[in-house]
Amino acid sequence: MKFKITIIGTGNVAWHLSTAMEEAGHTLTEVYGRDIKQAEKITNRVYLAEPKDDLDFSDSEAQIFILAVSDNAIAEISDAIILPEESILVHTSGSVPLDVLGYSSAAYTGIFYPLQTFSKDRNIDFAEVPFLLESEDQSTLQKLQKLAKSLSPHQYILRSKDRLALHVAAVFASNFSNHMLRLSEEVMRRQGLDFEMLKPLIIETISKSLELGAKRAQTGPAIRGDFQTLDRHFQFLNYNEQVAEIYRLLSQDIIDSY
Amino acid sequence: MKFKITIIGTGNVAWHLSTAMEEAGHTLTEVYGRDIKQAEKITNRVYLAEPKDDLDFSDSEAQIFILAVSDNAIAEISDAIILPEESILVHTSGSVPLDVLGYSSAAYTGIFYPLQTFSKDRNIDFAEVPFLLESEDQSTLQKLQKLAKSLSPHQYILRSKDRLALHVAAVFASNFSNHMLRLSEEVMRRQGLDFEMLKPLIIETISKSLELGAKRAQTGPAIRGDFQTLDRHFQFLNYNEQVAEIYRLLSQDIIDSY
Repeated sequence: MKFKITIIGTGNVAWHLSTAMEEAGHTLTEVYGRDIKQAEKITNRVYLAEPKDDLDFSDSEAQIFILAVSDNAIAEISDAIILPEESILVHTSGSVPLDVLGYSSAAYTGIFYPLQTFSKDRNIDFAEVPFLLESEDQSTLQKLQKLAKSLSPHQYILRSKDRLALHVAAVFASNFSNHMLRLSEEVMRRQGLDFEMLKPLIIETISKSLELGAKRAQTGPAIRGDFQTLDRHFQFLNYNEQVAEIYRLLSQDIIDSY
Repeated sequence: MKFKITIIGTGNVAWHLSTAMEEAGHTLTEVYGRDIKQAEKITNRVYLAEPKDDLDFSDSEAQIFILAVSDNAIAEISDAIILPEESILVHTSGSVPLDVLGYSSAAYTGIFYPLQTFSKDRNIDFAEVPFLLESEDQSTLQKLQKLAKSLSPHQYILRSKDRLALHVAAVFASNFSNHMLRLSEEVMRRQGLDFEMLKPLIIETISKSLELGAKRAQTGPAIRGDFQTLDRHFQFLNYNEQVAEIYRLLSQDIIDSY
């Protein structure tokens, strides 16, 4: 089943989704950007989508309108957008509830959330991206499943209250684990050491954690109860009180959870 | 240059190093374990090493004695071990200073630290393991370099004060990033959600972080300054005060560092 689709937004998700949709055989009819130049950057990469900088879509042929904008712009745009009859309006956010779309002119609403971290300068293999779907309308949900299936074999139907938990879990797994690498980089740079040294350790740590589960994969001074080393490390970090406190709190939490 | 080597210890590092040394053409002469059965588990896997449960090595032919024991056993064993003349004694720890070996009967001492996380049930590709080396004796350092080079192309000479910084950085990069995955797993399990959903995100996050650097790779509510989401997540975690505090502190540190 092929769809006619409009993408609202010009950020990283819009950028990657638009070409992936077209490659999967769907037709992009319009791309909306507040700044039309940004919309053109995307329409230039696809077959025939029109760039637009106004939200009147009453003449659009699209069946599905995908809101790929920042979380705090979703409510405003969904209130303002003018849609043709029988349209489906979805957003792509992990943290905004479905009912935010309830004031729009859409006949049906839903969530079409690709659980991945997107950057313009990295290709995304959508076959590896799980799509988390939600709608109160069964026929809409089926259409979103078909759309997702055309991009990836991994789809999950999620209730809004589960989506909040998932998003919290994603912050720990992605944003916070990345921040741990950031803090590690800074310790190395401060000492004039080459961060390259640590890369094999990081790759093996994450591979092992995903294979065995993080509980079994844990190593290091905290889980060994090596308080002498913990104390030496804490003292070492005294140049940054907040980072020292992060070291203390995470070590304590590791100690407490075994 | 091939060496005759004795391994002291029967843990994960001893296990992996012993076979890797033999595959690289060195000769294992003895493996010491407090429990000789543990030593035999390793000697059974190599060509002719003898298992031992006493620390008298005065008749040993080994040139290099590798202490691969837990950090808090290094001082005790190095004090007690009886070594032949002209021996080199090294330990494999990231956190114990070199001078701890100063009271041993070894002619020369050093550090031979493979910067990796070892588990018995996962193979290690030593070609990807950086070896961090230290010795106050130049000729010892050269021998350690040759030994390391026979196992891996990645070697670094590190001063003890840099090794402390490196170990702190490794705790952030490995133990703490693994703990972030652990906390993520627990949020998912508590909600009855499948952790598999998050694996592609984790893999992409770490790949991106190692390629672009963690600072450029960061995404999520904290760096966006999305306080509404941060607050919703913090409230969600109120069932565990310590984990909620981790969420708050890490978000604050991300906000402060951009």
